[in-house]
Amino acid sequence: MTTLNIPAVASWLQSWQQSVIDMLLTHETKVAPHLEAWSYPHLGGGNSQALLQGNIIEKGGVNFSHIHGESLPDSATPSRKHLVGHPFEALGVSLVIHPENPFLPTTHANLRLFVSHAPQSDEHPNWWFGGGYDLTPYYGFTDDCQLWHQKAKDACDLTDPSFHGRFKKECDDYFVLPHRKEQRGIGGLFFDDINEYDFDTCFNFIKHVGDSLTQAYNTILSRRKDHPWEDKHKAFQQMRRGRYVEFNLLYDRGTLFGLKTKGRTESILMSLPPSVAWPGESVMHIGPEEKQLTDYYLIPRDWLANPLLEEE
Amino acid sequence: MTTLNIPAVASWLQSWQQSVIDMLLTHETKVAPHLEAWSYPHLGGGNSQALLQGNIIEKGGVNFSHIHGESLPDSATPSRKHLVGHPFEALGVSLVIHPENPFLPTTHANLRLFVSHAPQSDEHPNWWFGGGYDLTPYYGFTDDCQLWHQKAKDACDLTDPSFHGRFKKECDDYFVLPHRKEQRGIGGLFFDDINEYDFDTCFNFIKHVGDSLTQAYNTILSRRKDHPWEDKHKAFQQMRRGRYVEFNLLYDRGTLFGLKTKGRTESILMSLPPSVAWPGESVMHIGPEEKQLTDYYLIPRDWLANPLLEEE
Repeated sequence: MTTLNIPAVASWLQSWQQSVIDMLLTHETKVAPHLEAWSYPHLGGGNSQALLQGNIIEKGGVNFSHIHGESLPDSATPSRKHLVGHPFEALGVSLVIHPENPFLPTTHANLRLFVSHAPQSDEHPNWWFGGGYDLTPYYGFTDDCQLWHQKAKDACDLTDPSFHGRFKKECDDYFVLPHRKEQRGIGGLFFDDINEYDFDTCFNFIKHVGDSLTQAYNTILSRRKDHPWEDKHKAFQQMRRGRYVEFNLLYDRGTLFGLKTKGRTESILMSLPPSVAWPGESVMHIGPEEKQLTDYYLIPRDWLANPLLEEE
Repeated sequence: MTTLNIPAVASWLQSWQQSVIDMLLTHETKVAPHLEAWSYPHLGGGNSQALLQGNIIEKGGVNFSHIHGESLPDSATPSRKHLVGHPFEALGVSLVIHPENPFLPTTHANLRLFVSHAPQSDEHPNWWFGGGYDLTPYYGFTDDCQLWHQKAKDACDLTDPSFHGRFKKECDDYFVLPHRKEQRGIGGLFFDDINEYDFDTCFNFIKHVGDSLTQAYNTILSRRKDHPWEDKHKAFQQMRRGRYVEFNLLYDRGTLFGLKTKGRTESILMSLPPSVAWPGESVMHIGPEEKQLTDYYLIPRDWLANPLLEEE
């Protein structure tokens, strides 16, 4: 059995943060990342890398944080009451990328390690990995959806062939707006509490997931960044971004937990899109191209049931 | 003692809805209201009047609804458990006006009557009025703030001189964004459960409040609608509208209750502004004029402590 190695995770997370930024900068040519480091006395800190008002990335944030808490809040782990009130440690990277071009999808990812410093029992590990990623297109492309889920499956299969089915379903179940009866996007992976293998195996799974996100999103950026768009496409993107805001502020557990526990507001809300519209039902233009999003792409499905299509 | 007269309230609410629309149309010259009537089988219905993409009103909604429920949900009245599960009736008008010009404030108002059809006790009335109004400026004007609160006080004083102090404080206490340590706006009136006088007296109070909103907002529109503005003012307004969205989706009880109980999503979310921005901290322009909003206008205070200033 391998042992818990927090510094190795912190180091890898920061190298992954940098590799995502480097990947984005192979596309983005107008702006440089704005780096902001922050810390809370005795509680740790983090750093945010923001890409704002770029030619490809309208708003993007890739944030690393490493926090030590003296007392786990009651609301943090409903299923593990014995950890409440004990010291804990949490480290992770969160990213949200909102591209300018409405034919490019928004992506969100999170990879994290949680460690409890409660007196330890021998039965259960005192650490859990968690995270996942998902894609929110405005105008869908079947081959992008297939690529996205294929990369996710490949990453999972390296560790456990049962992972992909479970974590895709958890993702579909999580990113739902009940008041709209809509999914937020086309899904991906979502997992909590990963410690069913030894530490190194779970850590390797996290690395595979991280690398697959960078590769998949890189390919999609390459494919679509030069897709021509007009004002009507931008208007539709901004209206759909409203749904993104609704999900994050009404339902997203990380956002609500972060704000409730007085986390760093700017980091938590970096996920909100740069420009958004709720124009009112009767003036929204929803043509056949726009209708495809909700009628086809946002319906959860097995995107890998057919072999990968060639680029159309 | 006067008796409960629901039809009279329904009739007055609809006439007030129309008088607000008529007032707005003395300023708005580009667009006509879009009227949409809706109903749920056996549960009642309502009608929405929306002003969208106008020259003065960028987005406004004035909505009437009259709903009959067969069984009051548990979450509706935490303080009156004996009414849960019994039939009820609710009627009201809600409005939110988002002007185009950043020098015009957003306003929100709600007036409502709630009636329980639970077996009645003689001790307590089975009806309650509720509501209030508040103002959210982007660029503040002292005389507008004074006018706003003076009209609110005058309306309250006609019924009970203790009302204004109580209901202004409730408003200041309610419209708070704890994660921003900011008020949503400059406040106004907020009251729940008004039945401490007989029905007609309480109903008259509601009428006075409604009329005072129309008058005060009309005066402010007249004063500021021709104020010149530039792109930088619009950008600040859109960024501040983000705070409005944050409040409504994170904290507003009516919004969260409505969505949770499967109310009509389009009516509930008509409050969300037409165009909003979360541009990212490091690219926001906050000059001295913009800083005044949070440093002065959004600090709760007694705006009537000094006599009304003349128009500057």
